[in-house]
Amino acid sequence: MISLNDIHTAGKQLPKEIVRTPLLFSEDLSKKFSCSLYLKTENLQITGSYKARAAFTILNRLTPEQKKMGAAISSSGNFAGAFAYMGRLLNIPTAVVMMQKTAPFKVERTKQYGAEVVLCENRFEARWETLGRLQKERGITSINTFESPEVIIGHGTIGLEILADLPDADVILVPISSGGLLAGLALAARETNPKVKVIGVQPEGSNAMYLSYKSDKLQSIELVETICDALVATKPGALPFSLIQKYVDDVVLVSDATVKQAVALLFEHSKLVVEPSGAVGIAALLSESISVQSKKVVALLSGGNVSRENFITLLM
Amino acid sequence: MISLNDIHTAGKQLPKEIVRTPLLFSEDLSKKFSCSLYLKTENLQITGSYKARAAFTILNRLTPEQKKMGAAISSSGNFAGAFAYMGRLLNIPTAVVMMQKTAPFKVERTKQYGAEVVLCENRFEARWETLGRLQKERGITSINTFESPEVIIGHGTIGLEILADLPDADVILVPISSGGLLAGLALAARETNPKVKVIGVQPEGSNAMYLSYKSDKLQSIELVETICDALVATKPGALPFSLIQKYVDDVVLVSDATVKQAVALLFEHSKLVVEPSGAVGIAALLSESISVQSKKVVALLSGGNVSRENFITLLM
Repeated sequence: MISLNDIHTAGKQLPKEIVRTPLLFSEDLSKKFSCSLYLKTENLQITGSYKARAAFTILNRLTPEQKKMGAAISSSGNFAGAFAYMGRLLNIPTAVVMMQKTAPFKVERTKQYGAEVVLCENRFEARWETLGRLQKERGITSINTFESPEVIIGHGTIGLEILADLPDADVILVPISSGGLLAGLALAARETNPKVKVIGVQPEGSNAMYLSYKSDKLQSIELVETICDALVATKPGALPFSLIQKYVDDVVLVSDATVKQAVALLFEHSKLVVEPSGAVGIAALLSESISVQSKKVVALLSGGNVSRENFITLLM
Repeated sequence: MISLNDIHTAGKQLPKEIVRTPLLFSEDLSKKFSCSLYLKTENLQITGSYKARAAFTILNRLTPEQKKMGAAISSSGNFAGAFAYMGRLLNIPTAVVMMQKTAPFKVERTKQYGAEVVLCENRFEARWETLGRLQKERGITSINTFESPEVIIGHGTIGLEILADLPDADVILVPISSGGLLAGLALAARETNPKVKVIGVQPEGSNAMYLSYKSDKLQSIELVETICDALVATKPGALPFSLIQKYVDDVVLVSDATVKQAVALLFEHSKLVVEPSGAVGIAALLSESISVQSKKVVALLSGGNVSRENFITLLM
């Protein structure tokens, strides 16, 4: 259904606004973890997270008619900003569905980037219902980002860049929410170099993919409780899950306390601002749950959107 | 005395441990300042600052006999760590002279990087006296980093990289302490592209180069008071000053309050940890003291060595 070639094509189509983010070797952290550690710095990506790639890929692949009528997704975080930004860049009207309980500053930020914000009830399913209504009533193309092949293809471009820069990478550590990032990156990486191991990382308090992966069956969770505010999917996407079963070597969990330590380590030794969700790979190394001795390890730092107030708390 | 060719040669000799730091385009800050703004990210350099280049260049150019006996500089900050690190890398014994009042954590950090620390009285001149004594009594090569051509040559490699990545840069903004960085960078940049303007930036509370540049005569100041703890030279180096008179287009001042704002802007929009001394170029843009409308502007972010406690204060 999704091929390596699709991802190569999407990679070539990315506009100049998408940053070819550096893969930075970290000498200090390599010593600390007794490996060669490289950081894929998607925190330096436009709009502050890797979502910019998928947002562009979704919108770029719409038909001319769809582009005219506009497109909608549901997100309260990084995807919202990226989608709005790319809509403005491509001159496509965008709408973002958010629950009424969404923090007002996130609503404002999304509007500032240029999207219409449509609020819905505080129920998970109300988001899909509202997307359906927008499509039916206003002819807007509504995209379920959990199940969209374009999203997975867009994310996959990160895997291509990592292996272009470090063809003999041994291990790649990837944050997981609904699984689209891990699925796309693993497909791209493993189809390029079958020897590379791709490992997903999830917070202990938001472990739907972990449970699903370990039981080989899609599982939902009721409650999410973690400081990783971009990793809060209560159920994996079915399409990403099928790819993860095929391409991913393991899924591990990390505690919030370890994520906090990881953010501080990246501040001190790498001079990078990384949001908690983006630091879970480093947290996995701190947890010593993965064997990396002498290996070439890549940690994907997926985003850097953290407020001053939160960052201060994380450093304290 | 120093030629562009010297800097090219030094650049080719830099070891793999020296990071070819990325020149990152900042879309958000470009919009804010109505220019195309690029960040030369020496905060991502090994040991957390640009000093690693000059430290290597000094030590690498010693004679075999000098290498055996070791080398010494005076520094309480970024140069100390970089010098110790490069000594260990090249297997050359290093000593660093620090005043007794130096913060104990800086003494410890320098020792951890592998240098001997020699404490001296709390007088500016006591540092040079102690360096002289080390040379006389122990045969250690003592380097006055304010006047060393090797230091200027090492720093110059940053200018080459900037113009390799952005040949038609219009303006480069550079922090100033004693002037070695500005001198080397300006020489390299202007000899490569005579059209580029190089502008030095100094804190209002540490303005020895500003006074010297404006009066065309070396000037000392009595008191230094600034949050830019790496920009505290009370007098410019004579050698750097002569080059700065030749190659630099202007020197401007920034307030500590503006530097604090600049650190927060870089945190929020560029996801980078930059120490106050490294953020003075962005502070100069905030001060609107330089005309950059529609130009290609490079701000050199010279370092990222800031403690958690200090960074928290800067973000508050």
